[in-house]
Amino acid sequence: MPITMYDLAGSDPNRRFSPFCWRTRMALAHKGLEVETVPWRFTETDELPPPNDGRVPVIVDGGKVVHDSSAIADYLDGRYADRPLFPGLAARGLSKFVQNWTETVLQAGMVRLIVLDIWKHIGPADQVYFRQSREQRFGTTLEKVAEDREARLPAFRASLDPLRRTVERQPYVCGDAPAYADYIVFGAFQWARATSDFELLAPDDPVRVWRGRMLDLYGGLGRRAPGYGD
Amino acid sequence: MPITMYDLAGSDPNRRFSPFCWRTRMALAHKGLEVETVPWRFTETDELPPPNDGRVPVIVDGGKVVHDSSAIADYLDGRYADRPLFPGLAARGLSKFVQNWTETVLQAGMVRLIVLDIWKHIGPADQVYFRQSREQRFGTTLEKVAEDREARLPAFRASLDPLRRTVERQPYVCGDAPAYADYIVFGAFQWARATSDFELLAPDDPVRVWRGRMLDLYGGLGRRAPGYGD
Repeated sequence: MPITMYDLAGSDPNRRFSPFCWRTRMALAHKGLEVETVPWRFTETDELPPPNDGRVPVIVDGGKVVHDSSAIADYLDGRYADRPLFPGLAARGLSKFVQNWTETVLQAGMVRLIVLDIWKHIGPADQVYFRQSREQRFGTTLEKVAEDREARLPAFRASLDPLRRTVERQPYVCGDAPAYADYIVFGAFQWARATSDFELLAPDDPVRVWRGRMLDLYGGLGRRAPGYGD
Repeated sequence: MPITMYDLAGSDPNRRFSPFCWRTRMALAHKGLEVETVPWRFTETDELPPPNDGRVPVIVDGGKVVHDSSAIADYLDGRYADRPLFPGLAARGLSKFVQNWTETVLQAGMVRLIVLDIWKHIGPADQVYFRQSREQRFGTTLEKVAEDREARLPAFRASLDPLRRTVERQPYVCGDAPAYADYIVFGAFQWARATSDFELLAPDDPVRVWRGRMLDLYGGLGRRAPGYGD
């Protein structure tokens, strides 16, 4: 029986744009596990299986419900030992560093470039929720957050230096083969790709070459999903 | 026969302040290998064993000369399989990400706070070399680089967020036990500790708790070295 995954969707149910859901989607593909995704919207909190904290990703695997992308990664490595998401003793700890960089630098910088584009791709009910919750977080309107993004692009690109140097010198964040830390970083780029035509990366950026490599994985899983760009 | 390690020293030969040498020093201790260190100064380029590229760390292990901290880490894991510096398949790749963050964010931010303090701790010949090469790199005087460092401290501390979140939630960068990525980050803090009484971390910073844990390792190897602070 395939695993069920609740996956954040836009007004187009095929537009899947949650960076956290993309981590899980890639992790399931890495393990070679079959999945049936259920499109879910921010405001459909009642439609998740219990225990329900109103967020995705959530997976249901033979009756077992697991929510939160990090908990799902741990669950998958515990339940399906083959093709580990954290290969070797130190990989889980080190992947946390990559995750914390992704959340405090990459996603924090990226959202200020694409937040208005995200809003444009979700349905009316979600738009109300999204605008209200994000404007409260930023302390200003979505339009103000996205203003002058061209001027902020060079600083955003410079903030990618740790990632850039890494994938300039080895094929994946995890070394010779992709693993969970790659999916964490890639999730952020899929968030942007699904919702925004604003090009975050210069054409000759090694990060872009790595992103292309990630888009090609698992039969082009990331590339086939509705989105913009390469 | 112990391994010989050429180690950057200040005017006081016991003041060892290279972040790269500290990586190697901790790596040797991690492996439980005996080491005899040789104090070396920037301007003593002729005193390194061939092949000599004028930089440290360099180790000599039974006639085999290895230079560059990264090459030394790889050499040690190849030659001495026990207690790996890169535990598991993905650890080496992921440690590169931590290294690239350390070099482009942590060390790049730190040097602008401590560069004048470093200069004060080295001998006259090294002072001439250091001032000339660093002023060329920064395009201004060491005094100008260090100016207003109090004002820049909050931004420096904020830049440590990926590290902070990681060691707030697990004891080491590598997870439950320290490994090479911890030594990479710790090397930067030892660079500051050896040369500067400027406190980089707030008293309640989780990074400071982690640094204390690192200072305690291997019989207090890092703490016993001449330096400032805890």
